[in-house]
Amino acid sequence: MDRAQQIFDRLDELGRISEDAHCLTRQYGSDAMRRANNLVGSWMKQAGMDVRVDAIGNLIGTSAVPSTGGSSRKTLLLGSHLDTVKNAGKYDGPLGVVLAIAAVEQCKDKSLPFDISVIGFADEEGVRFQSTYLGSRAVAGSFDEKDLQRTDANGVTLANAIKHFGGDPNKLSECRFDRTKLLGYFEVHIEQGPVLEQKNQAVGPVTAIAGQTRAKIKFEGKAGHAGTTPMSMRRDALCGAAGFIQMVESCARYNAGLVATIGQIVCEPNVSNVIPAIAHLTLDVRHRDDKIRLRACDELQAAAKKVAALRNLAMSWQVVQETTSVPCSTEFSIRLHQAILKHQSDVTDLPSGAGHDAAVMSKICPIAMLFVRCKDGLSHHPDESITVEDVRVALAVLTDFIHSFGIRK
Amino acid sequence: MDRAQQIFDRLDELGRISEDAHCLTRQYGSDAMRRANNLVGSWMKQAGMDVRVDAIGNLIGTSAVPSTGGSSRKTLLLGSHLDTVKNAGKYDGPLGVVLAIAAVEQCKDKSLPFDISVIGFADEEGVRFQSTYLGSRAVAGSFDEKDLQRTDANGVTLANAIKHFGGDPNKLSECRFDRTKLLGYFEVHIEQGPVLEQKNQAVGPVTAIAGQTRAKIKFEGKAGHAGTTPMSMRRDALCGAAGFIQMVESCARYNAGLVATIGQIVCEPNVSNVIPAIAHLTLDVRHRDDKIRLRACDELQAAAKKVAALRNLAMSWQVVQETTSVPCSTEFSIRLHQAILKHQSDVTDLPSGAGHDAAVMSKICPIAMLFVRCKDGLSHHPDESITVEDVRVALAVLTDFIHSFGIRK
Repeated sequence: MDRAQQIFDRLDELGRISEDAHCLTRQYGSDAMRRANNLVGSWMKQAGMDVRVDAIGNLIGTSAVPSTGGSSRKTLLLGSHLDTVKNAGKYDGPLGVVLAIAAVEQCKDKSLPFDISVIGFADEEGVRFQSTYLGSRAVAGSFDEKDLQRTDANGVTLANAIKHFGGDPNKLSECRFDRTKLLGYFEVHIEQGPVLEQKNQAVGPVTAIAGQTRAKIKFEGKAGHAGTTPMSMRRDALCGAAGFIQMVESCARYNAGLVATIGQIVCEPNVSNVIPAIAHLTLDVRHRDDKIRLRACDELQAAAKKVAALRNLAMSWQVVQETTSVPCSTEFSIRLHQAILKHQSDVTDLPSGAGHDAAVMSKICPIAMLFVRCKDGLSHHPDESITVEDVRVALAVLTDFIHSFGIRK
Repeated sequence: MDRAQQIFDRLDELGRISEDAHCLTRQYGSDAMRRANNLVGSWMKQAGMDVRVDAIGNLIGTSAVPSTGGSSRKTLLLGSHLDTVKNAGKYDGPLGVVLAIAAVEQCKDKSLPFDISVIGFADEEGVRFQSTYLGSRAVAGSFDEKDLQRTDANGVTLANAIKHFGGDPNKLSECRFDRTKLLGYFEVHIEQGPVLEQKNQAVGPVTAIAGQTRAKIKFEGKAGHAGTTPMSMRRDALCGAAGFIQMVESCARYNAGLVATIGQIVCEPNVSNVIPAIAHLTLDVRHRDDKIRLRACDELQAAAKKVAALRNLAMSWQVVQETTSVPCSTEFSIRLHQAILKHQSDVTDLPSGAGHDAAVMSKICPIAMLFVRCKDGLSHHPDESITVEDVRVALAVLTDFIHSFGIRK
């Protein structure tokens, strides 16, 4: 049978399970999530796995065959998430789960000195409770009990949502994986960026999940009549912001691997015949190396101060989020490189600019990730698109990656 | 008596006549406008003038004394407007009317070879019917009959508003002044800008009412994930806009007298973690010399094209308004300069960046304007502020300006 085509078809089928009749939306704890778990669970069973849903709702398939290595035998955990954003594409998350099941099936008859489990995390996107990684945090033991009081748009608490889904908010500690039993966690995910497409490569290894700084910046000058205030007497907040925006871009262009974005700008009063008094900006800076990111942020803050001083503007800089980088395991990455080179002539190392469950899992075991090319770098959109040929490469790489551990043992 | 203080007190009194209990608003045709006309008309009568309200609602005071120059005797028209914006200050408009009445009173006993009339225009701001200069256009014979069908926020047509105010929409042609009888039109107005305050001068002559170009500009690139799209693969509309905003400022700084403003910016999707796909800007360019303004606009449009080409963005440029410059009369300006120099040691020529009834009156007679210093350059705001000392200078300059015609005759 053509497993790549089967993965492709399964992702189509899974993509039709939605809480919304007109588009794909599967939020944590929804009936659609339950149906998705049932369907994916049935594929796990077909692959010979024992299937369970843990106390928070993660779907877990484990090797059904008795362990041959005794209690010292470890588990390689493969997976990704089964929840989606609103009006989602069908690959962000599900690809990593469905592909892992196919890999297990492919390895079923091979004798490996470790078990393989597959996990479909219940909440990576965090749409319903505005709190990401609920599923992997329960597994990694970093779940914050306070989050149980979070409420969704209808006022339902997370605790009640867990109960409604058939879980138990008092038994979340039972979701924890024993870190001494874990060989590592490996996640396949669409790239969500344009690099592989531009390089014409099916897959690429992730070097690290980038650290991120998010800041809110405000330049404040003085409003004035656009017709009667000479240029020399202006304190135009937007002109200051424009200079800063260009500095942000230059800073990122001169620091390899850095991405820096002013995604949002709001001016006041924002009227055509009035000089802008205030410009609010959001800054998003990411790099796999925290030192480079933090130095860039320091430089940008100094630049913003200078722009403000030169133009007699007030400037405020408020860091709203700071996330450190999570490097992938060197050993895993070497194995992954070797596996990729069997199936494609070049390898492009990719930082992951977006966050993933793997970042949470890194707290308890080595992690690695494989990105799969996606059309136009698009994600979180119904037009998400991948090819069956790329799925074939990803499955072959994943299988070889798994076998590389067996060979070494 | 202290006429400057009287002007100041009268402006306070007039500033309390409002259609809004909490702030100053006097729209065209309102009951507040009627009360304002009555009050200002009573001051005209005290100054010995015959008072009438014309068919559109302009308040006009004319010399009551019999003319000595026969039918060849001309009229110098002084004035400004009595309507206001919403939540207005009390000087933008009324200052020019109340000051003119005081000047007439001051000149009453002098034998002048021309008559003086004072006009309080009924609609300069155009708040109610979104059409400016209704009053002066009726007087200058450039009123567009189609405007009678305009409706206010309550669906009342201008034609009915004129009737309700006691005027006659069928007799607007009777508002016309005979251009052969007009010596000229002279308007005193607050500066609405910060130059006189910065130069520490009470008043300044206006060289011209600046021409203006307003354009809407759009840069369009491509949205993308702020974390996963490398800098080299971006088509960031905001980065392009930022470069253009800086060019606009530079262009204005290198062309003396030019003002150019990006007052409004709206980005799409305007979300912190998405690369901006579209940036909409408004551009406002003004200069007293139309050639300089038009050349600057051409240069800026070429610059915008270049920015877009370099960044692989689409760019559109839509001119939404084009107004030519209206120069003040050279003869009047020379007289005004001489009058100012009697009362202050330096003269700063000012272009008027904002429009005024004088621009409309220029169609039928020579015009000139005098600006009076206002605090922080503020207008269209309840905090508009002038000093009694500056009013004293303005009155003296206006009186000397009027006498200069008599001396020459």
